[in-house]
Amino acid sequence: MSVNMKSSAIAHSNIAIVKYWGRSPSHDPKMNIPLNDTVSMTKYGLMKDTRLQAHTTVHLSDDYSKDIAILGGETLTGKGMERILNVIEPLRERANIDCRFKMMSENDFPTQAGMASSAAGFAALAIAAVDALNINLSKEEISTYARLGSGSAARSIHGGFVFWNQGDSHETSYAKQICGPDEFDMGAVIAIVSEEKKSITSDIGHESARTSPFNKVRIKKSQEQAWEARKAVLDNDFSKVGKIAEENCKYMHFIMMTSDPPLFYWNPDTLRVIKTIQRTRKEEGLECYFTVDAGPNVHSLCRSEDIYELQKLMEKTEGVKKTISVKPGDDSCTTEKHLF
Amino acid sequence: MSVNMKSSAIAHSNIAIVKYWGRSPSHDPKMNIPLNDTVSMTKYGLMKDTRLQAHTTVHLSDDYSKDIAILGGETLTGKGMERILNVIEPLRERANIDCRFKMMSENDFPTQAGMASSAAGFAALAIAAVDALNINLSKEEISTYARLGSGSAARSIHGGFVFWNQGDSHETSYAKQICGPDEFDMGAVIAIVSEEKKSITSDIGHESARTSPFNKVRIKKSQEQAWEARKAVLDNDFSKVGKIAEENCKYMHFIMMTSDPPLFYWNPDTLRVIKTIQRTRKEEGLECYFTVDAGPNVHSLCRSEDIYELQKLMEKTEGVKKTISVKPGDDSCTTEKHLF
Repeated sequence: MSVNMKSSAIAHSNIAIVKYWGRSPSHDPKMNIPLNDTVSMTKYGLMKDTRLQAHTTVHLSDDYSKDIAILGGETLTGKGMERILNVIEPLRERANIDCRFKMMSENDFPTQAGMASSAAGFAALAIAAVDALNINLSKEEISTYARLGSGSAARSIHGGFVFWNQGDSHETSYAKQICGPDEFDMGAVIAIVSEEKKSITSDIGHESARTSPFNKVRIKKSQEQAWEARKAVLDNDFSKVGKIAEENCKYMHFIMMTSDPPLFYWNPDTLRVIKTIQRTRKEEGLECYFTVDAGPNVHSLCRSEDIYELQKLMEKTEGVKKTISVKPGDDSCTTEKHLF
Repeated sequence: MSVNMKSSAIAHSNIAIVKYWGRSPSHDPKMNIPLNDTVSMTKYGLMKDTRLQAHTTVHLSDDYSKDIAILGGETLTGKGMERILNVIEPLRERANIDCRFKMMSENDFPTQAGMASSAAGFAALAIAAVDALNINLSKEEISTYARLGSGSAARSIHGGFVFWNQGDSHETSYAKQICGPDEFDMGAVIAIVSEEKKSITSDIGHESARTSPFNKVRIKKSQEQAWEARKAVLDNDFSKVGKIAEENCKYMHFIMMTSDPPLFYWNPDTLRVIKTIQRTRKEEGLECYFTVDAGPNVHSLCRSEDIYELQKLMEKTEGVKKTISVKPGDDSCTTEKHLF
């Protein structure tokens, strides 16, 4: 019997409220077991052309003589291909299907610029691969496979607000939903100050995090913050979630800057936007909080009613090239539309 | 017998290699007992009009009906006057002289802009007051009185490279010289990105430091770094001193930014200069290291032979309003020239 299995999926990027930075040294680094529980919001762009989605098609067929993965028109090799295989190999094994695949994936937003493009991409890949291989898995189980491609991809399996349980094994390090996209009122304006690719990938940073003398304190605090943030989301306490996000973001960037080698993802415009957000909160009474992933761009978290005013303020800020406003996104899911 | 005692002194600013940030909670905050030993270089500006000096005259006379202190033409009141009295009161008591004083002080550089103007000012005040009151004290002893005005002023009593022993009492928290200005080859280019007065004085920050969850680790590391820096100065190891300065500076600013309330002394141009220094070291082979005091301006430490090239690079950097190049300065001392 010849194999011919195809599925496509879409998944959304997410912004961490309590960050994933650094991998557990007790496990194979490929497993992406984090150092603490983390919390995020799955993002859905308010503009039609920038939903912050990845769209991925996986096709397994006897016709292919080797595994192929194409991201944004470019054929992946080396580390890039390795990460795709980290997700697909164990699923192919689990399904007991031994044939080659072709993957094609497209993002509607810049890759490797600290926009969590890999989170969306690997979540979509896991959903599509599980569906193509016809494996019956819960979303939590699928999230463990997404994690093998990129840690934070585990969270993008779910919509709304998500808790990634650190765990201490492949099975126990999974993401689960805290609440759906309509159950907690928060949005964000992303201030893009640079669309350049990062000179240092997060991958290197996850390894060097432990060289910072402050890392142990950060892990302890982050663990507390993850549970506080979860509770604050369920309590519908935006101020609390925002404050935690801002503190936790600073912690991560200070670990980065005090690691060996030091990683300075902030650029001058990042700091300008951060200061604008602080001033807006203090002087204009518009309650907003900053958070920055592993890149220079700044997310300003706010209540949904404040998104447009905040977007206008961000657009006026020196150094901001463009803005993307987002609300909480839905679960990742399969789609009828195939990329090839 | 009527009292008529007058003396003038000059003292130089200093740049901390291992910073003073936060006061010991076991002592009266007015004592400025630090949380760790600290290390600095006393600075002498290479341009005639900007030596980074304070020039202070103290006159004790029965003719005065009240204590008066004038800094840069402005009569001090409130907190400013209180700090002057913190230095003069115990000295007046020690000399057993009960009459009023007039103080006049001038800096040849901007005050309260993170340029350690108070370090120079209070060092000059202590020297002048001790001399006017005709008290016989060692420089180490004088440094304890300078400390009562501004912690880092203790270090400005000495020239060259200075170690401020944390201590656990007024007498034991003193500064001593590690080596003279010509015994270790280091200079600095100060990139001025703002001459505005700080919106938050260091004084407030010294109290809030303990609210950062990272402060304990910083204290422990700073204590190690102070002794490593001392040894590196004596070993004539510029690279080591530079690396310690850069790390320790980051530690202090991260404590500031993670304190409650958070203090962001860096501005976008601060970060731009920091990145220029990192790039210069990496790509141009000019060995330089950044350090930033409680303000936005950046010191770039380098070997004396590199000062002019580094100055040219700094002057070309966007956001740099002007530069001040410095070499290690001499001891503070009395001067024949009185301000009134």
